[in-house]
Amino acid sequence: MNPPPAEIGALIAEVETPALIVDLAALDRNIVKMAGFAKTAGVRVRPHAKTHKSPAIALRQIAHGAVGQCVQKVGEAEALVRGGIRDVLVSNQVVGERKLRRLAALARDATIALCFDAPEQVDAASRVARDFGVELGGLVEIEVGMERCGVAPGRPAAALARRIADAPNLKFRGLQAYHGRAQHLPSYQERAQAIAYAIDAVRETVAALAAENLDCEIIGGAGTGTFAIEAASGVYNELQVGSYVFMDTEYASITAREGGRYREFEHSLFVLASIISVPAADRAIVDAGLKSYSAERGPPWVHGRPGIEVTGVSDEHGRLKLTDDAQPLSMGEKVWLIPGHCDPTVNLHDWYVGIRDGRVEALWPISARGASI
Amino acid sequence: MNPPPAEIGALIAEVETPALIVDLAALDRNIVKMAGFAKTAGVRVRPHAKTHKSPAIALRQIAHGAVGQCVQKVGEAEALVRGGIRDVLVSNQVVGERKLRRLAALARDATIALCFDAPEQVDAASRVARDFGVELGGLVEIEVGMERCGVAPGRPAAALARRIADAPNLKFRGLQAYHGRAQHLPSYQERAQAIAYAIDAVRETVAALAAENLDCEIIGGAGTGTFAIEAASGVYNELQVGSYVFMDTEYASITAREGGRYREFEHSLFVLASIISVPAADRAIVDAGLKSYSAERGPPWVHGRPGIEVTGVSDEHGRLKLTDDAQPLSMGEKVWLIPGHCDPTVNLHDWYVGIRDGRVEALWPISARGASI
Repeated sequence: MNPPPAEIGALIAEVETPALIVDLAALDRNIVKMAGFAKTAGVRVRPHAKTHKSPAIALRQIAHGAVGQCVQKVGEAEALVRGGIRDVLVSNQVVGERKLRRLAALARDATIALCFDAPEQVDAASRVARDFGVELGGLVEIEVGMERCGVAPGRPAAALARRIADAPNLKFRGLQAYHGRAQHLPSYQERAQAIAYAIDAVRETVAALAAENLDCEIIGGAGTGTFAIEAASGVYNELQVGSYVFMDTEYASITAREGGRYREFEHSLFVLASIISVPAADRAIVDAGLKSYSAERGPPWVHGRPGIEVTGVSDEHGRLKLTDDAQPLSMGEKVWLIPGHCDPTVNLHDWYVGIRDGRVEALWPISARGASI
Repeated sequence: MNPPPAEIGALIAEVETPALIVDLAALDRNIVKMAGFAKTAGVRVRPHAKTHKSPAIALRQIAHGAVGQCVQKVGEAEALVRGGIRDVLVSNQVVGERKLRRLAALARDATIALCFDAPEQVDAASRVARDFGVELGGLVEIEVGMERCGVAPGRPAAALARRIADAPNLKFRGLQAYHGRAQHLPSYQERAQAIAYAIDAVRETVAALAAENLDCEIIGGAGTGTFAIEAASGVYNELQVGSYVFMDTEYASITAREGGRYREFEHSLFVLASIISVPAADRAIVDAGLKSYSAERGPPWVHGRPGIEVTGVSDEHGRLKLTDDAQPLSMGEKVWLIPGHCDPTVNLHDWYVGIRDGRVEALWPISARGASI
């Protein structure tokens, strides 16, 4: 692990760059806003830790009513349980004996569930849980239009649920019905249409489960782009939102119901960079590139500096272009970049530098950084 | 740091996934090939450690005649010097007192040089080197067509070189003349044209330096896409090639002189992934996504499995599409992915899993992973 880029109490000017900055006040407002929304809508929040990879942020979400956390990887679950989280859902398939053992080991200290879309995986998890003398929760992942994992809704899903319910040391807990591709569809209309399909798939499956006398404790899904639609569906009861804590340019670019940029939540995540070269009046170079922010959804935005844009990204550099009326940039000056895609950006860093009122207030290790196994 | 995904001696089937695999025989052949090329061409090789971030690989390159290493960041230089490398060039600007101090501290144990494109940076580095009682080498970075850092060639460059030569505790060592954008131009013709421009810029600068009685020990530049052109220029004397050790799909996609894919070097770097879901006959899902390979230059290629392509990439998943005549994939099966872009892919992992003859032979920590400061 690399050393932290700042000390507690330091001014922003003293933070070494590139650094991953969290605006703590904005982060807290985002958490409070989602918690309030869920309360009003009568659904639970189980935020996705694949975004933040940090027990410190997970605990803040739980302090505001979240029922636990989602993860995608066993390594993320390990980091969370080590950090004090007591209820973790792996919203993904876990394939391989060793990974299942690691998950079963966590079930001694925490409530652990995972998803299934194949009968042989149910049998494998049951066997390992029995060996460990623990119980693992099992959700059936259903295909709701994203063409990734998941069994067909309705009877095939109900058959798999029955297998989980009957398997020793597994407990059937519900359905995983996340529609990832829907999150970034440009218009509200398109997102609503995609989620309507998912809702139908859930309804059909719930009906098939009823025929098997199986109830769903959890019907989970939803992301930052669509959560209000799932929450209003009357069938989903857990929101697996992740990005809302930080936001990014990809989410900001989707068009909200009312038209214009999506502004439900505030940008709280930034990559702080420094100018290391000013080769021309209309060009400046920062010390942060592809190893400090992910750019597969486009370059980062420059925050709070009108007329300045990132026009080129290489491994360790970003090229800024200044319009004629932009305030000039000088050597060593710091700029705040808003990442294109928050999750893979976070995964590049070892530390969150938490800022409040212009000072470093927190240094949180990104404990599950690189925990992809 | 995450635990290694395998044990020495393990079979490939036993490697936990996702894992970053190095084919050791292919790696060594690439290193030997570049060394042989440079020897014949009468130029030195100073490979770029921004690609591999590993003293273990740096030492292999040096054992085959490389004169040292390039890095982009002070943290990378620290990892290399700790790992036994004794000659490091930071092929980049280093801005900020603390970073300069860290570099000066390394100069006690190793020959250290850095690049300049601004007089105030020369003065700052000289001051710090004097405080430490060490000597830092200085290169003038010139703009050769990539529109990133660098001063204009010719007289402006010579003026900066003079300032370095006159500055206490700095030693003028030459020119940094890397043309990054030229590396991936699709045709040999375009690459040759871009580098011809760079060669002219170097020649003009060397002439201006002669008027100042300044000689260049190092004229450095070149990448895996253009190194033969710089080597034949008669002016460049150090090749800063990085990607050749591993290759990636971006390099493989550029067209070689003879037409067709660029095949000077072998793919030695892979992301090993496992099938975690087979939802349809023509679709399978792997456990490796944007947190295991960088995809801003496109999705990875599937190695050695005709008729199978990666058609979708999300944070932790890759979607494989199978043609009708492709060999089917089964749950838990391993696939080898060739990353789109090697440098940022390496930066996502903590360990190289070195493979020879189907077994794990080496586990090398990626010591400078995330060392962006």
